[in-house]
Amino acid sequence: MRAERIFTNARLATMDPALPGLGVVERGMVAEAAGRIIYAGAARAIEADEIVDCEGRWITPGLIDCHTHLVYAGDRAAEFEARLQGAGYEEIARAGGGILGTMRATRAARAEDLRAAAKRRMAALVAEGVTTIEVKSGYGLSPEAEYKCLEVAKSLGDAADISSTFLGAHGFPPEMARADYVRLLCEEMIPHVAAHKLADAVDGFCEGIAFSPEEIAPFFAAATRHGLRVKLHADQLSNLGGAALAAKFGALSADHLEYTSEDGAAAMARAGTVAVLLPGAFFTLREKQLPPVEAFRKHGVRMAVSTDLNPGTSPLFSLLLAMNMAATQFRLTVEECLLGVTRHAAAALGRSDVGVLTAGAKCHLAIWDIERPAELVYRIGFNPLHQRIWSAA
Amino acid sequence: MRAERIFTNARLATMDPALPGLGVVERGMVAEAAGRIIYAGAARAIEADEIVDCEGRWITPGLIDCHTHLVYAGDRAAEFEARLQGAGYEEIARAGGGILGTMRATRAARAEDLRAAAKRRMAALVAEGVTTIEVKSGYGLSPEAEYKCLEVAKSLGDAADISSTFLGAHGFPPEMARADYVRLLCEEMIPHVAAHKLADAVDGFCEGIAFSPEEIAPFFAAATRHGLRVKLHADQLSNLGGAALAAKFGALSADHLEYTSEDGAAAMARAGTVAVLLPGAFFTLREKQLPPVEAFRKHGVRMAVSTDLNPGTSPLFSLLLAMNMAATQFRLTVEECLLGVTRHAAAALGRSDVGVLTAGAKCHLAIWDIERPAELVYRIGFNPLHQRIWSAA
Repeated sequence: MRAERIFTNARLATMDPALPGLGVVERGMVAEAAGRIIYAGAARAIEADEIVDCEGRWITPGLIDCHTHLVYAGDRAAEFEARLQGAGYEEIARAGGGILGTMRATRAARAEDLRAAAKRRMAALVAEGVTTIEVKSGYGLSPEAEYKCLEVAKSLGDAADISSTFLGAHGFPPEMARADYVRLLCEEMIPHVAAHKLADAVDGFCEGIAFSPEEIAPFFAAATRHGLRVKLHADQLSNLGGAALAAKFGALSADHLEYTSEDGAAAMARAGTVAVLLPGAFFTLREKQLPPVEAFRKHGVRMAVSTDLNPGTSPLFSLLLAMNMAATQFRLTVEECLLGVTRHAAAALGRSDVGVLTAGAKCHLAIWDIERPAELVYRIGFNPLHQRIWSAA
Repeated sequence: MRAERIFTNARLATMDPALPGLGVVERGMVAEAAGRIIYAGAARAIEADEIVDCEGRWITPGLIDCHTHLVYAGDRAAEFEARLQGAGYEEIARAGGGILGTMRATRAARAEDLRAAAKRRMAALVAEGVTTIEVKSGYGLSPEAEYKCLEVAKSLGDAADISSTFLGAHGFPPEMARADYVRLLCEEMIPHVAAHKLADAVDGFCEGIAFSPEEIAPFFAAATRHGLRVKLHADQLSNLGGAALAAKFGALSADHLEYTSEDGAAAMARAGTVAVLLPGAFFTLREKQLPPVEAFRKHGVRMAVSTDLNPGTSPLFSLLLAMNMAATQFRLTVEECLLGVTRHAAAALGRSDVGVLTAGAKCHLAIWDIERPAELVYRIGFNPLHQRIWSAA
């Protein structure tokens, strides 16, 4: 074995599923060739062109933010301010705020401006060792605007791995009837997205204020026919059986899940659907209903943690902070949080080539100035990243 | 008027008490000479040696973090992890955790190591435009260890203005009786701290698990006799009348205040005592009892917002995030949050030379890449600082 580069004198949290917990290797090393890990484990002699001495630092896989709405125009700071002064949702909507306000701004924006704004947001994630980011459309709600956003998402792949998701079923555009939009999604947009490989999966928002389960079902059926995996914003504000619906379509993930029942959790376990927990939205909306973490544990549902980065309900730009919020609010353990932004986040994207330090995986690393992995969850608003290694290959 | 440096083409949030709200000047400038602001207001012609074009960015006063426990050894990440796995407080205390664990580590640490650790934490605050930091002792709980921590605090003044506070009444050292420690504080430590100018004020923790009001009173009386202003951790977990006690001694601030009654708020208003709100501890401890913000508004109590940076109950290293948490959890308005980390935070430290952009104030500036001040409160885990100006003079 000959490596291009080795990272020596490191402590590893490999997240290797063959090892217990975080897959810790105390006196470890990582060897890389052609952008892939060729060895990760106990220190041994490997010839290499370049040696990086980690001086006892910890290495984790590069972090994965598996649920973001990174591409949008405008922000909602003025709306945030108005709400703190007592403005109600209706008043804000009348003043052009809310999701339709973001839709209008996003439709009007040029692709290059959307890209520039997204790059700035992405820089905050990347600065914390994030190497893989899921990016959803969903603020266009028209064929032209949705495709534009998905193209922008793809273009972000010059600084991190991007998984793009077509969130056409995020809301209803004001210019047509609901049934017409569902038909447009199924008969025109999904086929186009699939044919042009604009997205890796589709996503919907199943909620009283968004799509009903009866509207999501044909959308998911069309996606499945066109070879696209599905994801779902499920049971965030009420229990419409979203988790079970997602599981029925073999969803990669169901996300939010505050109101999911134990039956829903069991269905997810059977389908292998990952539970993506989004504590930033829970915090921002001041929710009280906790996701059924015990049921997920009991049934063996893998849990991921993500920022839900979006301009309205979760303007959260830090995956480290998402972990802290998941621990503090949802009582996830440190181990659950760290698996939730690595191996389990990868599973939520249908990927096994990232989120682990094992031979064959991409050489995406985060090298940390910490004494123990718990520090990544414990501190609030502190970034101990020493170096991020992202292998474009 | 001739300036050494002018900052032109800027939008100002001056926090000038003579102006309403944030004291906004849309087409503004700041002029500096000898480390002081000599003019801040509408753009006009001022000769200067150096011109900084702010390109339309916003300038606020450099931010002030008016309640931190920045100097300590060790951290409590392992304890955080154990608690998420279900360990109780007693179990953690037996394993050497809790405040006494921090005390032991702090006593054992060399001053230079305490300083290096504090510098690293401070760098996170400074990166967000903080130019003035209050630093408490309180993890020494012996004359030698408390003085060591106060010396370390003073030594941090090479990168920000430091206000140091002698928090001798933080807890009781295990090696002596309570009454003996109170006597030691009053008869030996306060006189020493005052004589050697080791602190600008004293502070105590008035709570069922810490000092009783009857123990705080002689401590405050001794401080007052020696010319030191007082501050108090008050009414955080229960209402022991801490706010009223602080007001009785003309305290600069009472801090936490979740359980403060309206009478306590009224007493604070009469005494001019600032209410320092600490949403990071509220978040970390998953508290439900909200501080009486309406009563503070009604009685005209000035509110400040701070990180409470400490290793146990608030490992929060971001003052921007403290503002977001104050808005989201406590429903402070954007204006209240921003005054709370500038002019009102200065008042909590007994200072009027920082926290405002007015002639005569120190030229401590934060220059921001934002469109409106609300963005500083709205975003979670995002730092839009363009440049920090800290004038050591």
